Parts: sequence; C-alpha cells; structure tokens
Amino acid sequence: MSVGLASLPAFFAEYQARVVRQIDALLPEADREPAPVHESMRYTALAESKRVRAVLALLCAEICGKPDAAMPVAAAVELVHAASLILDDLPSMDDAPLRRGRKTNHLVYGEAIAILAAFALLNLAYDTVATAYPGEQGRRIARLLADAIGSDGLIAGQAEDLLATEQQISFETLERIHRRKTGALFSAAATAGAMTAGASPDQIAAVAAYAKNLGLAFQIVDDLLDVEGDPAETGKALRLDAKKTTFVSFSGAEGARQLAAELCATADASLGKFGPRADRLRQLSAFVAGRRL
Amino acid sequence: MSVGLASLPAFFAEYQARVVRQIDALLPEADREPAPVHESMRYTALAESKRVRAVLALLCAEICGKPDAAMPVAAAVELVHAASLILDDLPSMDDAPLRRGRKTNHLVYGEAIAILAAFALLNLAYDTVATAYPGEQGRRIARLLADAIGSDGLIAGQAEDLLATEQQISFETLERIHRRKTGALFSAAATAGAMTAGASPDQIAAVAAYAKNLGLAFQIVDDLLDVEGDPAETGKALRLDAKKTTFVSFSGAEGARQLAAELCATADASLGKFGPRADRLRQLSAFVAGRRL
Repeated sequence: MSVGLASLPAFFAEYQARVVRQIDALLPEADREPAPVHESMRYTALAESKRVRAVLALLCAEICGKPDAAMPVAAAVELVHAASLILDDLPSMDDAPLRRGRKTNHLVYGEAIAILAAFALLNLAYDTVATAYPGEQGRRIARLLADAIGSDGLIAGQAEDLLATEQQISFETLERIHRRKTGALFSAAATAGAMTAGASPDQIAAVAAYAKNLGLAFQIVDDLLDVEGDPAETGKALRLDAKKTTFVSFSGAEGARQLAAELCATADASLGKFGPRADRLRQLSAFVAGRRL
Repeated sequence: MSVGLASLPAFFAEYQARVVRQIDALLPEADREPAPVHESMRYTALAESKRVRAVLALLCAEICGKPDAAMPVAAAVELVHAASLILDDLPSMDDAPLRRGRKTNHLVYGEAIAILAAFALLNLAYDTVATAYPGEQGRRIARLLADAIGSDGLIAGQAEDLLATEQQISFETLERIHRRKTGALFSAAATAGAMTAGASPDQIAAVAAYAKNLGLAFQIVDDLLDVEGDPAETGKALRLDAKKTTFVSFSGAEGARQLAAELCATADASLGKFGPRADRLRQLSAFVAGRRL
C-alpha cells in the first residue's frame, strides 16, 4: 500500500475546514448557559476528525452540480456522528478512556452532561435540516436521517454490537452490525447530499451503493487500526476491542485489508455513469482503503 | 380543593386511549431485533401515564376546528417526554429506582440499552413529524420541537436542574429551570397542535401562553406530590427531591398549591377569545391545579 493512497487527498483539507466552520456556527456558544452542556457538545463535535461523512455528502452534491447545497446535511451527519461517539464511549458502553487523542467526553464533563450533550447534538442535527431545507426536501432528508439513526441504523448497530460483546458471532452478523453502525449514516450522507443538488433517482441509487460499501470498508479498516495502528496517529488506546469479534478475528490483518480494498473497488464500480466527475469520490475510497489514521 | 377538580375529566380517558394506540403503532415491535432496545422503548413510552402533553396538543387542535390533525404531534411529544424520563432516572442523573410504580428503565434493561432507547425515542419523534406532515408544516413543527428540546428547552432545564442540586438557588432560577424542563415541551405541544389545525397567529399565541403557565403549574404540583403525595398513587418513591430546592422549599406546601392555582387561572385567562370552545382546556387546567397523582 503506497503512502500516497493513505494520505489525505488535497481537496479534503479545504472541505474539512469549511465543514468545521459550519458546525462551529451551528453549535451554541460555550459561554451560553448551561455552559457545561455547550462546552461538552463543542468538545466532541469540533474535535479533530477526518469528517469523512461530511466530505462524502459534499462530494455527492458536487458530482450532481451543486457542491454548496449539501453543507447543512454535511454538518448534520457530523453532529449525529459526534453524538454517537459520546454514547459509544460511555462507561455503560465501551468505557473508553481516549478518543481522538484526548480524554473521552464523560471523563471531562461527567456522565450526565455527556449524555445530555449527545442528546442535544442529535436534536441540533434535526434542527439544522429543518432550518436549512425548504418544505418537501427538508422532510425527505429528515426521514432519511431518521432511518439511518433508528431501529435499522446506528442505534440498532450499536445495540447489537454491545449485545455481541464476548459472544461468538457469525461473519454475517458482524457485517450486519457494521452496515448499520457505520454504513447507514454513510449512505444517508451520500443520498441526502445528492438530493440537495437535485439528483435523479439513478444518481441517488449510484451514490447510495457507493456509500454503503465505503462505510463497511471504513469500519473494517477501523478494526485493523485497533490491532495494528499507532496510538499516536489514531488517538485511541490500542486493542480496546480485544474482547470483541472483529473483521480481523475472522480474516486476519492482511485478509481484512484486502476485504476493505475489494469493498472500495465495488464502491467505485457504482460510479461509472458519472465518469471523471466522480474522481474525487474515487480518491476518497482510495484514502479509506489505505488510511493509517 | 374538591375531589371533583382533582379527578380526570371524562373526555380525558378517551383521548389517552387514542394516544396510546397511536404510540403503540409507531413503536417498533418488541420482538424485532435488536429486541432489548425495542422492549425498552415500549416499556417507558407505553407505561401508564396521564398523557397531559398529548391531550394538550389534541385539545389545542380541537378548539381550532380539527381535533384529529394533531395526533402525530401528540404522539411525538409523548415520545420526547418518555425519552427525557429515561434520561432523568439514570444513575448519573436522579438515580431513581421507581417511575410510575415500576422499576425505572435502566434497572430493567441496563444502562446502555436504556440510553440507546431514549435516543431512539427522540429519533422516532422527529421521524413521526417528518412522516405525518407535508412540506412546510412538517418543517415548522420540527423546528418548534427542536427549540423545545434544545439549549433553551428540555435539555437545558435538565442540565441546570442537575447543576443546581445541593446548591442554593433563587426563586427566579428555579422558575427558569422548570419553564425549560417542563414548560417548553408543554408550549410546543400546544403550539404545534394548533398549527396542525391551521390556527391563526392570534390563536397560536393564546394557546402558547396558556400552555406555558400550565406547564409551570404542573411542575409545582409535581414538587408538592413529592412531599405529600401517596406513593401508591404517584408511583414514585417519596422525597427523592429532598436535596433539591423546589417550589415547596420556597413557598411551603400551601403556598405552592396556591401558586399552581394562580398559574392555572393565568393560563385560563389566555383563552378568552375561544369562549366556551375552550372549556376542555379549562377542565385540563383545573385538573392540573388539583391533581393528586
């Protein structure tokens, strides 16, 4: 795997910076009461991050001709993701001490405030969508988001992941967990992003298929980095998932890396109809397959 | 206070039953995977309850001529309320053993599942609004809900309530906490309910003012019942709030009861323009002022 593939594509940094500005503008100011909740929201939502979900939403709008239309969707999916990270790390869930190189949210603000901040971030995501998109479009995006978060999405994946800890699970179960836990929000980001640019049903189906496979590849590489990543780069304690069945326990490190590469190739294959316009999405999947952080 | 005022108005039971059927239909079935999350959602959202917020939404639509239009709003505010109850009772928050006469959600399903269920209930509330109401109306209702839940509403009130525990706070602070923690969702229920029936701005302002005062009165009576209620009727352990400053600590039991009655009178005064059409809302406030459960 070349270093070139693993490093961030150049356009990425600009998009990340724009997304961060947008999230910053949406979040309540840290000195507004109740300050601890707002500080806690900002702590996780503005933490250093790849913003892959947001960049995905922006690129899917871009290939349909309107890059800027997706900015509120990009911010909303990052707010949802931040909320899910706070919950994942709680003592009653993964009980994680570190996230992105810093203490996890509840270790800084206490469990109660962390939980309320996560709740407030989810709420702000819906507020953002309802505020930014007129009538029928806002409604469709809200429903997409709700599906990606709910009983077939993020929450279901997180619950199944918890229930599976220290249990023997099949490869199919593991795949379903991660399609829900990671893939669903990736798909929603891509689909909603394309929708804001007025994409056709064909275009929406193509980016949804791309994102579904990209999300699963992303999760597989996460499992890999948990085993062989450098904590100085990933910002997480190593081997936190040692008790969990992961893609690495099924396929070994090399097998998992290859599976991720295959899923990214499948993702790219969905983009045929866009031609060279989809080159940045192809760079994104090359980054995901090869990333080291 | 006469027993007549404290008992439930007759129409109430019918409305409660319809709301419960609606919530039941919206919730994922208990045997659908991940079953623990869905059981946990149903445990709290379908628990015996007065459904005051839902009945308020329905009555506010009714006096504007369309009682049924508000049913999804009525269900959505109850889902939000159920989510907030699960969070309030968590070990990191009020650490409550009993709610509505039964073990609290986390004692039955564990903390992780309880938190995910609360998250899923909030998500389902937004899904319900986006699904039920077309275009611009759905968007306006979602924004109302987001304001009532967010940094000036429910979450802020709960955070300030936690931060104030074992501290000396002023009457004004206490009132602000409860206007946010209880009043905001009451107001949103009333406003959104009226909106679904095509209410005029004047009508919306009237029911919002009514609901704001009703919500605060409701909370004051809650404080009273915590001190002098019968646990067999309220279903809560008594004096759980002993360490907290409440309306009873400021005004004594008789003073608090009187304050609630005055707020209900102020609430009723907002309804003048509706004439006898608002009689059921007046019965609702009489019930709130006099309730023993």
